Amino acid sequence: MAGNIARKQTDREPSDGPLDFGGLSNHLGYCLRRAQLASFQNFRASFAALDLRPTQYSVLVLINNNPGRKQSEIAAALGIKRSNFVSLMDELERRNLAERRKAQSDRRSHALFLTEAGVQFMKKLDLAHQHHQDHLTAKVGEENSALLIELLKRIGEGGPFELDEADGE
Amino acid sequence: MAGNIARKQTDREPSDGPLDFGGLSNHLGYCLRRAQLASFQNFRASFAALDLRPTQYSVLVLINNNPGRKQSEIAAALGIKRSNFVSLMDELERRNLAERRKAQSDRRSHALFLTEAGVQFMKKLDLAHQHHQDHLTAKVGEENSALLIELLKRIGEGGPFELDEADGE
Repeated sequence: MAGNIARKQTDREPSDGPLDFGGLSNHLGYCLRRAQLASFQNFRASFAALDLRPTQYSVLVLINNNPGRKQSEIAAALGIKRSNFVSLMDELERRNLAERRKAQSDRRSHALFLTEAGVQFMKKLDLAHQHHQDHLTAKVGEENSALLIELLKRIGEGGPFELDEADGE
Repeated sequence: MAGNIARKQTDREPSDGPLDFGGLSNHLGYCLRRAQLASFQNFRASFAALDLRPTQYSVLVLINNNPGRKQSEIAAALGIKRSNFVSLMDELERRNLAERRKAQSDRRSHALFLTEAGVQFMKKLDLAHQHHQDHLTAKVGEENSALLIELLKRIGEGGPFELDEADGE
């Protein structure tokens, strides 16, 4: 990978042509970020009618598959900070999709469940999620999809990382 | 891809074992997000001594390679919102790494340049960036790196997307 050649910063008027990315567009980290933003954009479009964001989706899937597990366990598994998870659950409760109950084994902690409406809501998610998956798979080609997932897992291993951090920069 | 099977949300005490991700961990979009967060985490570790975030790095690389181009062009090429770009440039100016000058062709707009200190700073970035790239490449294996970049570009094409949005959820 070519390094950053420090360029003389002259005062002459530059051209109007396309910008020189200086190798940036072939950096793995940069490509990962662009791809992930494109994926999020498609997720939001696919789930717009259901008014659901990626992290909310992940939380609903985990509660659905693990009813009664503690709030702290679900948050940790997804790498969501406690304070963010609390407001996320507040919203899912407000929408009557999920609920906190006092855990039987430890009355000081909360066990999470989908509500009956939440269980019904899960059934609606499949079509939107399939649309999103199909979009991504079509971009890379079906034959490359499994390898791509495998390579991404190798990069992502060692997590969880914070799914919900404002990682703007 | 198996759909979300809505599970009965019983009140019995769940096990303490590992959580059932119900296919989520094999979803391309989810794997992309986890990999991207792992990449950011390594970027921050690699660039900690230089106190540089990924978006700041991208902006410096683009200014270095395109001295004198308009602020609006650099922001658009990286998909950074105008308001975020202004505060980002404020910080780079405060650190004396880059500067805005009035554009010769249009005095109402700003042309961006690295300062002399910024040009010197670019030379320090190579080692940190190589460390970051080597880390990612080692994770996926050198022989898979080019294909991975190609597949990520296919997903990311159609951008730019907003590099700096708070895409927490």
